[in-house]
Amino acid sequence: MKKYQRLAQQITDQIALGVWHPGDRLPSLREQVVSSGMSFMTVSHAYQTLESQGIIVARPQSGYYVAPKPTPRAPEALEQVTRDEQVDINTYIFDVLQASTDAAVVPFGSAFPDPRLFPLAQLNRSLSSVSRSANAMSVIENLPPGNEALRHAIARRYAMQGMNVSPDEIVITAGALEALNLSLQAVTEPGDWVIVENPCFYGALQALERLRLKALSVATDAVNGIDLAALEKALQEYPVKACWLMSNAQNPLGFTLSAQKKQQLMALLSRYNVVLIEDDVYSELYYGREKPLPVKAWDDQGLTLHCSSFSKCLVAGFRIGWVAAGRHAQRIQQLQLMSTLSTSSPMQMALVDYLATRRYDTHLRRLRRVLAERKQAAWQSLRRHFPQAVKIHRSESGYFLWIELPTALDAGKLHEQALAHQISIAPGKMFTTSARWHNYFRFNASWAWGEREEQAVKTLARLIREAMAKTPQ
Amino acid sequence: MKKYQRLAQQITDQIALGVWHPGDRLPSLREQVVSSGMSFMTVSHAYQTLESQGIIVARPQSGYYVAPKPTPRAPEALEQVTRDEQVDINTYIFDVLQASTDAAVVPFGSAFPDPRLFPLAQLNRSLSSVSRSANAMSVIENLPPGNEALRHAIARRYAMQGMNVSPDEIVITAGALEALNLSLQAVTEPGDWVIVENPCFYGALQALERLRLKALSVATDAVNGIDLAALEKALQEYPVKACWLMSNAQNPLGFTLSAQKKQQLMALLSRYNVVLIEDDVYSELYYGREKPLPVKAWDDQGLTLHCSSFSKCLVAGFRIGWVAAGRHAQRIQQLQLMSTLSTSSPMQMALVDYLATRRYDTHLRRLRRVLAERKQAAWQSLRRHFPQAVKIHRSESGYFLWIELPTALDAGKLHEQALAHQISIAPGKMFTTSARWHNYFRFNASWAWGEREEQAVKTLARLIREAMAKTPQ
Repeated sequence: MKKYQRLAQQITDQIALGVWHPGDRLPSLREQVVSSGMSFMTVSHAYQTLESQGIIVARPQSGYYVAPKPTPRAPEALEQVTRDEQVDINTYIFDVLQASTDAAVVPFGSAFPDPRLFPLAQLNRSLSSVSRSANAMSVIENLPPGNEALRHAIARRYAMQGMNVSPDEIVITAGALEALNLSLQAVTEPGDWVIVENPCFYGALQALERLRLKALSVATDAVNGIDLAALEKALQEYPVKACWLMSNAQNPLGFTLSAQKKQQLMALLSRYNVVLIEDDVYSELYYGREKPLPVKAWDDQGLTLHCSSFSKCLVAGFRIGWVAAGRHAQRIQQLQLMSTLSTSSPMQMALVDYLATRRYDTHLRRLRRVLAERKQAAWQSLRRHFPQAVKIHRSESGYFLWIELPTALDAGKLHEQALAHQISIAPGKMFTTSARWHNYFRFNASWAWGEREEQAVKTLARLIREAMAKTPQ
Repeated sequence: MKKYQRLAQQITDQIALGVWHPGDRLPSLREQVVSSGMSFMTVSHAYQTLESQGIIVARPQSGYYVAPKPTPRAPEALEQVTRDEQVDINTYIFDVLQASTDAAVVPFGSAFPDPRLFPLAQLNRSLSSVSRSANAMSVIENLPPGNEALRHAIARRYAMQGMNVSPDEIVITAGALEALNLSLQAVTEPGDWVIVENPCFYGALQALERLRLKALSVATDAVNGIDLAALEKALQEYPVKACWLMSNAQNPLGFTLSAQKKQQLMALLSRYNVVLIEDDVYSELYYGREKPLPVKAWDDQGLTLHCSSFSKCLVAGFRIGWVAAGRHAQRIQQLQLMSTLSTSSPMQMALVDYLATRRYDTHLRRLRRVLAERKQAAWQSLRRHFPQAVKIHRSESGYFLWIELPTALDAGKLHEQALAHQISIAPGKMFTTSARWHNYFRFNASWAWGEREEQAVKTLARLIREAMAKTPQ
């Protein structure tokens, strides 16, 4: 644990112990520097962390205060999702995604990291190298379950984390999205109940609708992640078939569940014999020293289908992902053979070639460092320009910030207004079917911070101020 | 029309006029040479054509006879397909396909043409060339509907056939299979009735099962294609939503519908306002002078979703196909965004690069010529070694032969026995849910004919003779 994390934890513990009460003013940064003997940077970082976690709040010209107690969320903790709402959401998501493909738009709403962070030169060399192979043109060697060498390389990365995953249970897919969709299809029948987070990756909501499944949406927050009590309630009250969630750098909130909570979650699902579909596409984008384990690591019942990809950490355009599907691997291959047949041979082979160069980990180390720096820069800019009433939830992984506008504001409306200024954001309503996240949006912080980004943030800030002026606070 | 075709047509007309009756012995090849003044080659080719069309039959040491009148097929012309049967078929198809991926197996059961027929060197150059572009690594430019230049190139190929298809209604997909699946999903709801051919491409049966659709299977034969009377009966009696079929080089039978029949088919579907999902993956593999039009060419109501790909005529491993979806294009993009997101950027861009070299048509001309030669060589070998009781249906397109064993034999069993000798075939039961095609199999004739192929055919012939010896004829 780093110094600033220790200090943040210490203050969190003090609040839990009642040393500080909600609404109390905390020692100022200077006072804390003196009392702790830590540097101003460290103390400032600790306070920022606590603020992004919603534990403390900053008031301009006044200092830091312990956040008010969260209002009880019981009535919202568990929601049924109806189909009609989801049809709406598909068109909405489609429109938002299409908007962010326009090169003229500042892509704060994009789901993809800056592609300039990827090792293009090496990938190009790999692609060029496999293009000399006749096998690259043939589909046969790379039919489901996919290229054998690639499955071995992925199995070895699991092994590096101490997880025993056989290459035979891995199926190569068109990104994690196909892996997740095939997994869900493999373990459900239309009409089954499936648990998702609220808010969650919109792909989950779309998959549920497409496969005519019934969704139970469990409250999830940016600090603690999924509400285990509400999850258990859902498991008790409904014949749930599967649970689809993210435990590392959750999209859109950004949190990573603690090892303890992951273990509890797995124990809970095991008790009810419910399949876990774990979306782990951001697993390589942690900021700490060690790569966090997926929930699957605690699964000794073979209940988890673990889905991931290279799209968010190496190359988006290849569209290569996978699922470690355990005993469901055969069924998933069948489903793939009858829907897309397989992923492209040259793409699979180019990845094998690249991974064999052993530069992947060097690339990932650099990527993590740059993403952390860029997120910090984006955070500073947002904090500089946005009104204090706007809360910025910042997690220690990935490249998203989760931004909370005052309740009276509508992030969907802000998105529309921002688009008129060639700026995209990802409004909260993309990630949920409840009205709860109407005043939130996801902000992509992976871009090199320059004048264009700074100006775009100023424009957003102005739009927010104008909206605030029009609404009662 | 070529000389042999004129002669074949003349004999067909004579039979229709009652000049020759079913069971009559036709003039021998020598007699025909003398009376027609044509060469032995031409006459022989004409008789072979008539035989492959089932119009005449050869009896060893005896000569050629007019085929007996086909038995009326009314009771089988229209069948409902139940779900239970289809679940079986999925596992069966999966097993057969997996078997044909083994390099040690002579792949007569394979669905793919010999990859050595593809322009690997040029494709490699294109792949290598786009690998120098940063865009190849990004997903954004190639999100649905797909790479703009590629959609333009495809639209221009439609235009060359006199068809007006806008690049905007084209969606690039993971092969034709994804195009077909998305198309079906876009125009149906679970429980809807959909018409397929019997026999048909197994992917259609699998898609229907996956999407919980109800299938009506309409009788289709190797000479005349789909039974329009049975089709109309289905349209009259059921609330049919869509019809999925192939009009060019149908898989597995190989026939190409006449222009007249295509027009009739479209008129019929228009009358009942039923969507046509046209699988046209073999459209480039015609043997005549002109590329046959798809049924879509007669569609003035916008009822057709026309699906095709580069997998069977240029490169299989890229997994690039498309659908010209008309007013359904937007819905298909949505469905793709939520299931596989998009196809690989480098694959799309490499195709654009290759198509820009203008070598595609030169390649296709050579491909068609070689496939026709190889099919002829395979046909000769099969005819040489197989018992006369085995009927070989040969079409003038593509690379499949459709082989009919005596009724008492089971092609599924032959497949199992052949596999023990490292030979695959594609048994009829892959292409149907009825028992009707138990004694048929599809034979891939795209391979260069050598000693290995000749030996494999001899082995098949021996297995067939052994099976015939065990069954009453």
